[in-house]
Amino acid sequence: MTQWPITFEDVLAARDRIRPHLPCTPLRGYATLDAAVGCGIRVLVKHENHNPTNAFKVRNGLSVMTTLTPDERRRGVVAASRGNHGMGLAWAGALLDVPVTICVPVGNNPEKNEAIVALGARLISEGRDYDEATLCADRLMREEGMRLVHSTNDAMVIAGAATMTLEILEQAPAVDAIVSSVGGGSQAVGAITVARASGRKVSVHGVQAERASTIHDSWHARRRLPAASADTFADGLATRDIYDMTFGPLCEGLESFSTVSEEEIAAALRLLLRTTHNLAEGAGAAGLAGLIKKREQLAGRTVAVILSGSNIDEATLRRVMTGGR
Amino acid sequence: MTQWPITFEDVLAARDRIRPHLPCTPLRGYATLDAAVGCGIRVLVKHENHNPTNAFKVRNGLSVMTTLTPDERRRGVVAASRGNHGMGLAWAGALLDVPVTICVPVGNNPEKNEAIVALGARLISEGRDYDEATLCADRLMREEGMRLVHSTNDAMVIAGAATMTLEILEQAPAVDAIVSSVGGGSQAVGAITVARASGRKVSVHGVQAERASTIHDSWHARRRLPAASADTFADGLATRDIYDMTFGPLCEGLESFSTVSEEEIAAALRLLLRTTHNLAEGAGAAGLAGLIKKREQLAGRTVAVILSGSNIDEATLRRVMTGGR
Repeated sequence: MTQWPITFEDVLAARDRIRPHLPCTPLRGYATLDAAVGCGIRVLVKHENHNPTNAFKVRNGLSVMTTLTPDERRRGVVAASRGNHGMGLAWAGALLDVPVTICVPVGNNPEKNEAIVALGARLISEGRDYDEATLCADRLMREEGMRLVHSTNDAMVIAGAATMTLEILEQAPAVDAIVSSVGGGSQAVGAITVARASGRKVSVHGVQAERASTIHDSWHARRRLPAASADTFADGLATRDIYDMTFGPLCEGLESFSTVSEEEIAAALRLLLRTTHNLAEGAGAAGLAGLIKKREQLAGRTVAVILSGSNIDEATLRRVMTGGR
Repeated sequence: MTQWPITFEDVLAARDRIRPHLPCTPLRGYATLDAAVGCGIRVLVKHENHNPTNAFKVRNGLSVMTTLTPDERRRGVVAASRGNHGMGLAWAGALLDVPVTICVPVGNNPEKNEAIVALGARLISEGRDYDEATLCADRLMREEGMRLVHSTNDAMVIAGAATMTLEILEQAPAVDAIVSSVGGGSQAVGAITVARASGRKVSVHGVQAERASTIHDSWHARRRLPAASADTFADGLATRDIYDMTFGPLCEGLESFSTVSEEEIAAALRLLLRTTHNLAEGAGAAGLAGLIKKREQLAGRTVAVILSGSNIDEATLRRVMTGGR
């Protein structure tokens, strides 16, 4: 029996808490995108890039922040992040006057670091990747008594991410499938939770980068296969371990799980630019890349892809635009 | 005495007509952008790129379309456009089941053409620039009995554009100034109309491209100085004449009017990418370019800039990203 991290009621409650501050994001179709994807698929793009902080993670941060006790608010929160989780928490902390500390790996995306600082958070660079930065956050939690907000292993984080799928199902009664990229899995597990509770037949498909495929590999093996490294330009997906709260639900609830190459993610990012004229970061384009990869199986369906964020740095965007990755 | 094309009541009525279909767009500040602009200016970005069709012009199209008589709706509308006005009308026509014909100049931005067609409109390529395409639209109006919707010389178009400033003043009680790029002038005249009616001291500043500076030149000369050509990568600003409904109000109501070079627009576009992680087209970045140009005069103020749209084509974006324009 899989231990499920959240209930549908948790999602409804999270939506009630975040709605005063976060309007519903658009879900839009583009005939030019449908034509490019082909196979008679109707693609619906969930524009999480329209959120404050340009990423869905602001839902997660605000969902947690609105449940803190007065004492927790006073002591503040700490988290490890590659950027979007940190920006989401920093934004929510600024809104609700809660001090926020974000631990990023050394060499992290400089524009994301700047944005975290600009939102008023304390930034600490430590460790060589996301998973090492989590050790820094764990230590600060112990040393400074702050509330740790893991980017995945936190029920209120997953409930926040799930509100996105709540909106999708309300916006598109005809949706047959959702393709979600997987960094830690909050988005996908949120989607599975809501799809099941809806009583509708909506399948959820996971996508990881070939170069950061730990959860994908572990999913197929049905056992934990941590990796030595995770190196993708889709930095939001650069995890190299599985996460306790999401792995079981992903194993039980994902209809399929694929990987996409760096070039496939870059091509999807360019396709989003050309047809939707919205900016995407690598993780935000990976869902579309995954849909394109499995378009034969999804032929004729109405499929939602999550444009999860647009926080790509200028140098990376330039590389992607000029055919590199 | 300047003949004013719209009243404040027209703007309120337009807002009531469009609101069921177009949510308010965000007005956001970015500390990283403030730091880059300098002079103690607090910049607020009006994200018109979040609209359906990724441009403010959808307000204009919907404002007109919701006032048509049943007979006009049946016969359909025709307009000349470089893209965004056409996309706005096509979107509104699809929503309200009104046939739409859009006349674009030969060699128009192919992605904008595709988007117009994808929204279900009839597309006709004729003339060597926007002003020549208007002749085609005039002819079709006469020949086919359609309602002509000029992108500027139409009171309901200007009232639609003005709803953006209505939102800005509600969202930012502290705003001191608005910097607006000028293609035909609907955005700026809308802003002047609303700013005056608000009873608050909000100055409106116009910006044109150096390479399409007819309205700017005429404004300074206080007489019509049509140009032989208008050649800027900010295609939404590529007009070479003044427009009857907006020129007088611009002369009376604009606090200042500047031009910006192609390189200044490109630099502002890159700055928006880097600090807001939102895509802008040239016309959408020109407001920020104008603010940067006159930052000394606006030192210490809270200034709204309109990110009017993001419909830049891939080739142009690549040029801008790689330092060209």
